Amino acid sequence: MATTHGFSEVVEAEGHLIDSQILNVVFDTVVKRNASFDVLKFKIGRSNDEPSEISMRISAATEQALAEVLEELVALGCRLSEQHDALLRNADRDGCVPDDFYSTTNHRTLIRHKGKWIDVQHQRMDAVIVLIRGKAACRKLRDVRIGDAVVCGVAGIRVMPEFRDRDRLGFAFMTNEISSERRVEVGVSKIAAMMRDVKAEGGRIAFVAGPVVVHTGGSQHFQDLIREGYVDVLLSGNALAVHDVEQALFGTSLGVDLDTGKAIEGGHRHHMRAINTICRAGGLKQAVEHGVLKTGIMYECIQQGVDYVLAGSIRDDGPLPDTIMDLRAAQDRYAAVLEDVKLVLSLSTMLHGIGVGNMLPSWVKMVAVDINPAVVTKLADRGSSQTLGIVTDVGLFLHRLAQKLRSA
Amino acid sequence: MATTHGFSEVVEAEGHLIDSQILNVVFDTVVKRNASFDVLKFKIGRSNDEPSEISMRISAATEQALAEVLEELVALGCRLSEQHDALLRNADRDGCVPDDFYSTTNHRTLIRHKGKWIDVQHQRMDAVIVLIRGKAACRKLRDVRIGDAVVCGVAGIRVMPEFRDRDRLGFAFMTNEISSERRVEVGVSKIAAMMRDVKAEGGRIAFVAGPVVVHTGGSQHFQDLIREGYVDVLLSGNALAVHDVEQALFGTSLGVDLDTGKAIEGGHRHHMRAINTICRAGGLKQAVEHGVLKTGIMYECIQQGVDYVLAGSIRDDGPLPDTIMDLRAAQDRYAAVLEDVKLVLSLSTMLHGIGVGNMLPSWVKMVAVDINPAVVTKLADRGSSQTLGIVTDVGLFLHRLAQKLRSA
Amino acid sequence: MATTHGFSEVVEAEGHLIDSQILNVVFDTVVKRNASFDVLKFKIGRSNDEPSEISMRISAATEQALAEVLEELVALGCRLSEQHDALLRNADRDGCVPDDFYSTTNHRTLIRHKGKWIDVQHQRMDAVIVLIRGKAACRKLRDVRIGDAVVCGVAGIRVMPEFRDRDRLGFAFMTNEISSERRVEVGVSKIAAMMRDVKAEGGRIAFVAGPVVVHTGGSQHFQDLIREGYVDVLLSGNALAVHDVEQALFGTSLGVDLDTGKAIEGGHRHHMRAINTICRAGGLKQAVEHGVLKTGIMYECIQQGVDYVLAGSIRDDGPLPDTIMDLRAAQDRYAAVLEDVKLVLSLSTMLHGIGVGNMLPSWVKMVAVDINPAVVTKLADRGSSQTLGIVTDVGLFLHRLAQKLRSA
Amino acid sequence: MATTHGFSEVVEAEGHLIDSQILNVVFDTVVKRNASFDVLKFKIGRSNDEPSEISMRISAATEQALAEVLEELVALGCRLSEQHDALLRNADRDGCVPDDFYSTTNHRTLIRHKGKWIDVQHQRMDAVIVLIRGKAACRKLRDVRIGDAVVCGVAGIRVMPEFRDRDRLGFAFMTNEISSERRVEVGVSKIAAMMRDVKAEGGRIAFVAGPVVVHTGGSQHFQDLIREGYVDVLLSGNALAVHDVEQALFGTSLGVDLDTGKAIEGGHRHHMRAINTICRAGGLKQAVEHGVLKTGIMYECIQQGVDYVLAGSIRDDGPLPDTIMDLRAAQDRYAAVLEDVKLVLSLSTMLHGIGVGNMLPSWVKMVAVDINPAVVTKLADRGSSQTLGIVTDVGLFLHRLAQKLRSA
Repeated sequence: MATTHGFSEVVEAEGHLIDSQILNVVFDTVVKRNASFDVLKFKIGRSNDEPSEISMRISAATEQALAEVLEELVALGCRLSEQHDALLRNADRDGCVPDDFYSTTNHRTLIRHKGKWIDVQHQRMDAVIVLIRGKAACRKLRDVRIGDAVVCGVAGIRVMPEFRDRDRLGFAFMTNEISSERRVEVGVSKIAAMMRDVKAEGGRIAFVAGPVVVHTGGSQHFQDLIREGYVDVLLSGNALAVHDVEQALFGTSLGVDLDTGKAIEGGHRHHMRAINTICRAGGLKQAVEHGVLKTGIMYECIQQGVDYVLAGSIRDDGPLPDTIMDLRAAQDRYAAVLEDVKLVLSLSTMLHGIGVGNMLPSWVKMVAVDINPAVVTKLADRGSSQTLGIVTDVGLFLHRLAQKLRSA
Repeated sequence: MATTHGFSEVVEAEGHLIDSQILNVVFDTVVKRNASFDVLKFKIGRSNDEPSEISMRISAATEQALAEVLEELVALGCRLSEQHDALLRNADRDGCVPDDFYSTTNHRTLIRHKGKWIDVQHQRMDAVIVLIRGKAACRKLRDVRIGDAVVCGVAGIRVMPEFRDRDRLGFAFMTNEISSERRVEVGVSKIAAMMRDVKAEGGRIAFVAGPVVVHTGGSQHFQDLIREGYVDVLLSGNALAVHDVEQALFGTSLGVDLDTGKAIEGGHRHHMRAINTICRAGGLKQAVEHGVLKTGIMYECIQQGVDYVLAGSIRDDGPLPDTIMDLRAAQDRYAAVLEDVKLVLSLSTMLHGIGVGNMLPSWVKMVAVDINPAVVTKLADRGSSQTLGIVTDVGLFLHRLAQKLRSA
Repeated sequence: MATTHGFSEVVEAEGHLIDSQILNVVFDTVVKRNASFDVLKFKIGRSNDEPSEISMRISAATEQALAEVLEELVALGCRLSEQHDALLRNADRDGCVPDDFYSTTNHRTLIRHKGKWIDVQHQRMDAVIVLIRGKAACRKLRDVRIGDAVVCGVAGIRVMPEFRDRDRLGFAFMTNEISSERRVEVGVSKIAAMMRDVKAEGGRIAFVAGPVVVHTGGSQHFQDLIREGYVDVLLSGNALAVHDVEQALFGTSLGVDLDTGKAIEGGHRHHMRAINTICRAGGLKQAVEHGVLKTGIMYECIQQGVDYVLAGSIRDDGPLPDTIMDLRAAQDRYAAVLEDVKLVLSLSTMLHGIGVGNMLPSWVKMVAVDINPAVVTKLADRGSSQTLGIVTDVGLFLHRLAQKLRSA
Repeated sequence: MATTHGFSEVVEAEGHLIDSQILNVVFDTVVKRNASFDVLKFKIGRSNDEPSEISMRISAATEQALAEVLEELVALGCRLSEQHDALLRNADRDGCVPDDFYSTTNHRTLIRHKGKWIDVQHQRMDAVIVLIRGKAACRKLRDVRIGDAVVCGVAGIRVMPEFRDRDRLGFAFMTNEISSERRVEVGVSKIAAMMRDVKAEGGRIAFVAGPVVVHTGGSQHFQDLIREGYVDVLLSGNALAVHDVEQALFGTSLGVDLDTGKAIEGGHRHHMRAINTICRAGGLKQAVEHGVLKTGIMYECIQQGVDYVLAGSIRDDGPLPDTIMDLRAAQDRYAAVLEDVKLVLSLSTMLHGIGVGNMLPSWVKMVAVDINPAVVTKLADRGSSQTLGIVTDVGLFLHRLAQKLRSA
């Protein structure tokens, strides 16, 4: 559709376009791409409750450039004005898709098929959409099989970004800026309220936790949360479990006595002894059954039936028999137990936190807690309306959270 | 005293030379300076309670090189084997000293005068020693007056480093390494015990505090400490007082509502209003007297008679009438109120913390708390037996500290 | 003007309201303040070059609440629809203003006086506006004198925010997010181009620098910049000058040999010797004249006639005679030499960088360079269109910047 | 061997006991363990070149406590005075060892077997020692098989710690303290010299690299190092390769244009396109062969025959066919290619850096470069004589390193 500028297309969007900052991101995107926009129609929401609507013509010098800018605008929530069915192409080999495949966001997405808009299942980012027997679903690239019908291009796709809630009473309360100079108590109260709400509605809560939870003395408070039913899923790696077992068996964590703070020079040996003990038992569950492991985070998880998944990493010692060292399997297990989770708390783990963040749809909120602002900033990359970042000491945070949940 | 190597001198030392790491620092220093040592006599402490003794000849290529290495060894606790009186030279103008002046450490120091060893008063680092009417004292360079007798060279000087206590039960318990991956509760318990001990012995405790104490919600807990008599001295800057007053008058800190966490866009205006209000009253004390200021850290300080000193800085807004903008006067006031303090806690302030650290003798312990490990590392530069560094959230730390002090 | 909601007022704004994010900040502000808006008229810029225009009624429950939200909206660039002269009230004592004083932003501001809009001089944030003989100017609170006519309320005030330039080719190129994971070379090229532009137009460039410039080996490259005429103003503290002199006289910085990296145990003494040497000469300029100081940053500043100001701080050793220990005087000197500066580079100094940032009008760009992302984030608080933050090693940064400026 | 204290044993050690700080660590360890020492004989090295010798009786209250403290002392380089063969016990099942197994350090170790001291092969930390056909070797716990003869207890074991070289000219030059306030140029020169030395002696150099190498613009300089033969081994994860391919194919890295610094909103799609392209080719080598991949780090590795290993992680997108997702296999491959490496540089990757550090014997030096001091501190946990930490910008570091290597 050539114009003076070359090629163009009309797109539309509606919703809280201004205060969700979508409109300025759309304008930015167009300008950065050396494309141009021409607003055809704009209706502003008169008050806080009314949505806005826009229709505009996007122009670019080449068809390719237009396609690229449109792909971005669709991801931001615009849709082509002219309605077509989504373009489907068949994968020509396993684990590969056609070059113009549509790469998903984590926002709720619909595709138009035979004139009808259908919801995409298992929404997650960086996936492709396949259509099987009339149903659309996200699929990881590696799980695509030859012959699968893959959504390509941008026609017939609607993305529904979560609009940042204007009332600000809930999630977005301190998300403008990640800083260690904030009052954590306010965050703790909000999170405790969210956790109670989720449980009251029968929802599931997942924790992603690094070994720092143990080092910083957060273990006993985390165990309280498990016993009180606030932990449905625990996603972690080998290290958390090993440090937890070391503490349970020897009272140390990497050789530091957790009660006195004394570093024990040869305490690293406790670490290896802990692994040997669990290996001898055949695994964590068996160690609990045989009475070898009688306390700690993993013990409580097993007693309370928490769905835990330990994913391996290149730095693992051991590993414990429970640690899944095949990372494809570990990713699939993570994704499976996250399926119906309503809230995720990530505590002191960038690696597993990013892994989990990539798997979640945008409407599952994530709280990221770390003493390092850079880690929180990185996890908040998901988007500030999806992630609440708190920069604080994880041990003290868990203490306050457990107190707050108990006091209510 | 020329040898094959050039010039040499015999030095001696005694004490817990090995486990205090003094001996290896001495050896290091000699080698780095391209000098050499020849151990003449060494008696090792057979057990934990016995001191060791060493005598060694230090040799260097030039007289100048020997003088430099000896100056360092004396600062580490060695003394010349041949005993002479300390060399005194008169200052030839105000604020200046002879080129070979002895620059002090913060360790207890004695000088030999007329055959007798006398104690140096007002010990602090980076000062000079002057002898006035038979008494020796540290003096800042700028306070030296023409004609003052200044200690020069290294003869007749004995430095007594604090030996790290082998029992490890007290201060040095977690000082090997500064890390955010530590259990803060252990530190809180130790600090609470130290605070109670100091108060039980009638000692004074100083706090150095940055405005982050307010931002992170530590204010109310810090007020508890003041009311309970744990704060004898408060050293800070203009910002802490302004943020404290802003919170007292408007409930915000730099425009962030401390109860809800909501950032108020124009909240910066509260900051300026707070300053204007105190200026109108004529100062903090007057604002308390007139009933304008009825709560907060500064209010409690005034009510409890805490000795507070606010030092100005280039970034200050206002300032409040109480802030001392002449930094020479501010440094002198800081030093004066620190005179008989037994314990210092520095909370989230690198600037004032370093300033205070420079003023303290080595036997006054300092606890440095900050969420940024780099700040704690910097403050711990005083030496690991002098400073206990804790990397944590200051708001939560104060909460736990107040709880712990109340519970005992 | 009571409505159903209570009190209301009509405000207007125009410009790049959407892509500069002003509109969504305005909406946010209204909602957070529990006020409401009703859009009366909105004209969107059809293309990238056209401005937008809005007119809306703001309502709040009380007159006080309305006044507060209006004050914020005016600071954001809205103006009251009904035009009145600015309200003037006389200061009733020195250093104080009426309670409803207007607290300035750093954006260009006009006030309406006798029906005419006049420009406010010496624009800076957190000041008040006084009208003297028909001229309006920003004044620090402490400089207000009894009887001064002070602008109060919000009528008759227009603030003109800098609109973020849509072309993105210039300053805003990487300001979305402060991260250490960025390619610094890109930033160096942009900054070099900006510096050349400023100099080509006869403009002045100021540097704010901490002692880390010396520790990290940036000194020689910074000296190159001075010699090549890129440094018109140097704002710093006592420490930079002392470390620079120490390096010039002894080749060390805080006792670390800068050529070999060897830490010299007693090297701290060099620090005190350096101070003593300059004190004896009577100051830096005299030390250069007498041939005592022959190299280094301060030497080059003096040779090239750079306008330097050293502000004192509580942690200063010495200080050098050149360091201004009266902070009121130091702030005034900083502000004076910044008067006609077009670009500021802040290198590794949070304290002085914040001080300077507070003094600048919004149209003077600041580049903040630090290896600590938290420092850069804090300095960027001025606003992302005013500050470019770069997280990198300052020594290597200066090396690359000097190379880039030479190569063009 | 009961004494008044309970149980005791005589241990001996020799070498640079004082300046390597071994002696004070030994004393510390004894005291922390509530044991005691009684020095029987001590001969101090009279000068810098002479070793010291010590013999002391260690006493503890229980046999168990004595065993634990002895285990630590042996790890530090002490040996039992009474010479026995090492105790061997058979593993009773796969992946498990007897409870009193000896857990290795990464220092050179010998065991006494049939009266002779034999060297342990494949030295690494946190392993066990097995004896097979008269040869001793480290083995990971998971690789132990039923019936293997495993070294237990502490008799017949000698550990030879690397003594920190007193001349300080080499590795230990700036290892006392990890700080961002250091001159990186000094470190670059030392590292360049070490790299040239290793290559001159025909040794191999390994790099461990995170994707930040690409984001920070270090890629082209790293490619220079590869082409010039300084990279024999590259250990990394999926992310580095994907970002490198993205840059090679699209000029972006996570959607940021590396030449202009512009962030491209939808640039994340490039990331997925890059993966799809390599999957379609069948892997990186095939992509190079087919002319699909024509530049970049992975391209150069393949052209130059660099031994590269990509280990999977839970956060991986894709992964590329080359990424080893079975972490047991990945660890084994890492260990295999590190076998004869003489120097390791770890660039901006905590995860892979820790993994590699755990695999190396103490005499293989590691250089850890990261802009985050906490990461460098963590990697330096291996010991300051084994790891040189540099806190700087990795992109600029690689630029300077490549320049330095070319200039010599």
